[in-house]
Amino acid sequence: MSRTAVIAGQGLLAPAVVAALDDPLVYALDGFAPSVPATRFRLERLVPFLDSLHAEGVGRVVFAGAVRRPRLDPEAFDPRTAQLVPRILTAMQSGDDAALRTVLDIFEEHDLAICGVDEILPDLVPGEGVLAGAPSVADRRDAARAARILAGTGPLDIGQGVVVAQGLCLALETLPGTAAMLDFVARHDGLRPDPQGGRGLFYKAPKPGQDRRVDLPALGPDTVDQAAAAGLAGIAWQAGGVILLDRAEAVRRAEAAGLFLWARAEAGT
Amino acid sequence: MSRTAVIAGQGLLAPAVVAALDDPLVYALDGFAPSVPATRFRLERLVPFLDSLHAEGVGRVVFAGAVRRPRLDPEAFDPRTAQLVPRILTAMQSGDDAALRTVLDIFEEHDLAICGVDEILPDLVPGEGVLAGAPSVADRRDAARAARILAGTGPLDIGQGVVVAQGLCLALETLPGTAAMLDFVARHDGLRPDPQGGRGLFYKAPKPGQDRRVDLPALGPDTVDQAAAAGLAGIAWQAGGVILLDRAEAVRRAEAAGLFLWARAEAGT
Repeated sequence: MSRTAVIAGQGLLAPAVVAALDDPLVYALDGFAPSVPATRFRLERLVPFLDSLHAEGVGRVVFAGAVRRPRLDPEAFDPRTAQLVPRILTAMQSGDDAALRTVLDIFEEHDLAICGVDEILPDLVPGEGVLAGAPSVADRRDAARAARILAGTGPLDIGQGVVVAQGLCLALETLPGTAAMLDFVARHDGLRPDPQGGRGLFYKAPKPGQDRRVDLPALGPDTVDQAAAAGLAGIAWQAGGVILLDRAEAVRRAEAAGLFLWARAEAGT
Repeated sequence: MSRTAVIAGQGLLAPAVVAALDDPLVYALDGFAPSVPATRFRLERLVPFLDSLHAEGVGRVVFAGAVRRPRLDPEAFDPRTAQLVPRILTAMQSGDDAALRTVLDIFEEHDLAICGVDEILPDLVPGEGVLAGAPSVADRRDAARAARILAGTGPLDIGQGVVVAQGLCLALETLPGTAAMLDFVARHDGLRPDPQGGRGLFYKAPKPGQDRRVDLPALGPDTVDQAAAAGLAGIAWQAGGVILLDRAEAVRRAEAAGLFLWARAEAGT
């Protein structure tokens, strides 16, 4: 049987995936500190890297954890990867999805299968259900509006999270990420029309048509802390479409802070 | 000839409109400090207010400046306005556009015409052209992406501004507004993939299908300062669809800070 290579990014996902696999090879893009020991590779030398995976007997690859797009050193390219540069640069200018899709295509063109983390750790991606607290009627209405917003922004390739309170969009996630967005909400408290009304929620979903084998959005205990600091009533996400890291700890912190955690069925949109 | 009533909001638009009119009546929603002397009215007493406009001989109404949605005091409603509450509340839950559209409908149902500020001050809404500096090829590409993003988010009724750099969406405007969004960008500098590459721009446009008689997005000298503090290369907007307050001062500050100001033709999207 062929071996599995983990492309480790930042965050808690990579260690969980590595621990669940039998003797994986672990790699990380140079310039980003992964959360597990990893052999580094450079995007400028992607083709030699793919050759080395074959030489190690690797047949499938798992992407685990967030990777920001690297800065490219023009002098570091090998001749074969240099041939791919126009394709990679064009994709990068079209947004994250297009860039990632192009990298995946290149892996597959080199006979490496891409495997989703939910194939390795199905429990990481919660199915429908309320995991902590109890979303109110107002929260359920805000979640429906949030899901509609993300369905609309998905094709624009700008982000996978949104904060909605009392029907109003307080923030939309962009390049700086979830923590930055929730910090923004915390800084602009007091905008809700009815101060006694719903506090609102953070909602997360994959982009429509997103390749779910890689780059599923992720939540974790830190997200719970950030949502609490932003004064929200809870966190909801698309059931089956979002990774929940360290579920027990996330639930514990949500219950301690009085927040709900809700994997919401997509059909309810 | 009938008189004109100005509904004055915050910012520099109301004084400019008031100065351009012959003997206007000036009103402001209670709870928001307008930038001109104004008679206050409450949304909870909207119908008596509309009656009073007729009694003053008012035939047309101009909305000038930003108004945030007010908090409603259930005890302050008069019986006739109370009849409108279900309609107003339903609209508020659908977003800013729907709420405003409902209020405009109510004015028109009471035989008051709504007049756009560009009818009174055409120079406030610049047509196509570069007013300061010179957008680069990269800036023009970012502007095209920004226009596509706002065209996509428009129907979602979440905001009218976006920051794009190197093809990436750094921030999208939401309820807290332009200054908050540009402050967010300033706080999360350093995310651009190529530090030597394009700094990006702030782009503003009305929502597709927005009622342009009211609530056209506005830029002004303060926006220029905020964009400069966010490290952007310039500001672009949809020509003919955005108010530029105090054009001379905005151009002066843009030139001093090395920013471009560009009213971009919509067809270029």
